[in-house]
Amino acid sequence: SSLRVGLIPADGIGKEVIPAAKQALEAVSADLPKLEFYDLIAGWECFTRTGVALPEETIETLKDGCDAALFGAVSSPSRKVVGYSSPIVQMRKQLDLYANIRPVRASNVDMIVVRENTECLYIKQETLVVGEHGKEARATRLITEHASRRIGQMAFELALSRPRKQVTIIHKSNVLSVTDGLFRETVRGVPKLAGVNGRYDGVTIAEQIVDSAVYRLFREPEIYDVMVAPNLYGDIISDAAAALVGSLGLVPSVNAGDSFVMGEPVHGSAPDIEGKGIANPLASIRSAALMLRHLGYAGPADRIDNAVDAVVREGQVMTPDLGGKNSTNDVVAEVLKRV
Amino acid sequence: SSLRVGLIPADGIGKEVIPAAKQALEAVSADLPKLEFYDLIAGWECFTRTGVALPEETIETLKDGCDAALFGAVSSPSRKVVGYSSPIVQMRKQLDLYANIRPVRASNVDMIVVRENTECLYIKQETLVVGEHGKEARATRLITEHASRRIGQMAFELALSRPRKQVTIIHKSNVLSVTDGLFRETVRGVPKLAGVNGRYDGVTIAEQIVDSAVYRLFREPEIYDVMVAPNLYGDIISDAAAALVGSLGLVPSVNAGDSFVMGEPVHGSAPDIEGKGIANPLASIRSAALMLRHLGYAGPADRIDNAVDAVVREGQVMTPDLGGKNSTNDVVAEVLKRV
Ligand SMILES: CC(C)[C@H](C(=O)O)[C@@H](O)C(=O)O
Ligand SMILES: CC(C)[C@H](C(=O)O)[C@@H](O)C(=O)O
Repeated sequence: SSLRVGLIPADGIGKEVIPAAKQALEAVSADLPKLEFYDLIAGWECFTRTGVALPEETIETLKDGCDAALFGAVSSPSRKVVGYSSPIVQMRKQLDLYANIRPVRASNVDMIVVRENTECLYIKQETLVVGEHGKEARATRLITEHASRRIGQMAFELALSRPRKQVTIIHKSNVLSVTDGLFRETVRGVPKLAGVNGRYDGVTIAEQIVDSAVYRLFREPEIYDVMVAPNLYGDIISDAAAALVGSLGLVPSVNAGDSFVMGEPVHGSAPDIEGKGIANPLASIRSAALMLRHLGYAGPADRIDNAVDAVVREGQVMTPDLGGKNSTNDVVAEVLKRV
Repeated sequence: SSLRVGLIPADGIGKEVIPAAKQALEAVSADLPKLEFYDLIAGWECFTRTGVALPEETIETLKDGCDAALFGAVSSPSRKVVGYSSPIVQMRKQLDLYANIRPVRASNVDMIVVRENTECLYIKQETLVVGEHGKEARATRLITEHASRRIGQMAFELALSRPRKQVTIIHKSNVLSVTDGLFRETVRGVPKLAGVNGRYDGVTIAEQIVDSAVYRLFREPEIYDVMVAPNLYGDIISDAAAALVGSLGLVPSVNAGDSFVMGEPVHGSAPDIEGKGIANPLASIRSAALMLRHLGYAGPADRIDNAVDAVVREGQVMTPDLGGKNSTNDVVAEVLKRV
């Protein structure tokens, strides 16, 4: 059998870093099933060219022809554009990639942010009415037991593989007692689920109100191991956590479901440096490794991660965002040498 | 006439720091109308004793008998308690204190977070149904033109009094195009309102998506001057901004409306140090100064702030949270000496 990977560079530097991640995968191909790549399009440029941000063919190829994917980055229009909707948000929903997983490591930091990826305010149910005192807009925030349970279970599973085995639930149930109350109680209930059978006995549960969670993330990040959060808090927490690392150019993520996983660097499309050949490829390469890890290929994932860690530690060959003078290709070459 | 100030220590160390703030006000009383204080109750302890977190008498005295108030801190029950609802959230709504204003200063930071205080998810309209796949909870997020406009105007007014005169709008309109789109457009429209007549011509408008706003708050906080945000983002942003300062024990805030202002230290009730006489009174004292500033008494406000700044700068007399060994009373005495 083969490992079929969709490649979706999308916008800006996505087109420079996804090819780099592909090379990293090829470098460990001896330890993987036969690699097959599919070049797919999506994003803002795709929208301006074709009128859709996520073409039918892209989503169909991912659904029916791929086991996994690598996504680059997407540019956002600066104003609302009728008909445009972020392809990454659409793919998360359509492929049921219900977890966004972002490991963050720095000197005194070793945490994973596990963000629910399908509901909360991201269901985009919004209305606008003109009332007595002007316009009134409403959005619905949806939190379900189903989604909270599976993201909770993902967090507990990840905690099992870590030395500290601690899950911190992020919520705001002091204000949102029903929605965040449901999230909190459901995640707390995961170890007691039928069929779990004491599997999570060794995992400690902690919790934090979202505002003080962000505060403590900056004051004492060492208190966190696995953080699990509803979608919007998770979006903010994962960027806050990324700020603890030297550069966004180093932080990987995956969007994971039960039968598909998509690697995605945390950085954006960086239009200011697009086409200059100086984009940092390390977040994408690490995202490829993280993708492999979630597919069960820990060996090749470790080889890529160790190579990246070595290049970062040595600090000799670096793109400008890390203070270096090297190109994307220089950095890729350094990594490939060490894989 | 007189200046009537309600004092609501509420829970935990609130009972130690509000008396300190009262002393600071008394120290500048020569430059103020006759001060009258009203001792009022509210909070979690009040709830456990009386069954209500915000007694009718407290809110009536504030509404009819006071010009301003100082609020301490409130403890939260660790689980949902039927009938309990945070008194601070209630007061903000009932007194129409539509702005939460939090100035944050540190070595390379000088910003004010202006948070909308009355709507967004804080309207607490939540429902719970049991659907096909288990429980489903929904909350409504409300963003109105009316509330966005007045918070926007508050932000522009504050910007006018600052050297950089920059307002950064925080939103997530790339996902919430209707609600956050309305917030963004309405705040952007403030300078063009009828009656404003070029008043804000010198103010620059910037904007940031909330997740990257938090990221940049930690990587390059110097980019911000006045940040204006809907309620929940503002809640998170203001705690994130507070993390840039040495200690929560230094950060003041006010909840302001058009005809009432309530000072409130940013820290919580700190049950672990309650009653030990070592709570840091500086955030409350600064909140009293900020309250005076919003009432138009800049002179006495400056005197208190300068005294606090001197005590912090000298670093001789400090409570344990700042690494010192002194008591609340010692610190208050130092401040009063310098007022
Ligand atoms: C681009 C945006 C819609 C997206 C999100 O909010 O999910 C981004 O911030 C992310 O975290 O991947
Ligand atoms: C205690 C809580 C309800 C409150 C809020 O979320 O507004 C607090 O975090 C604050 O910022 O004053």
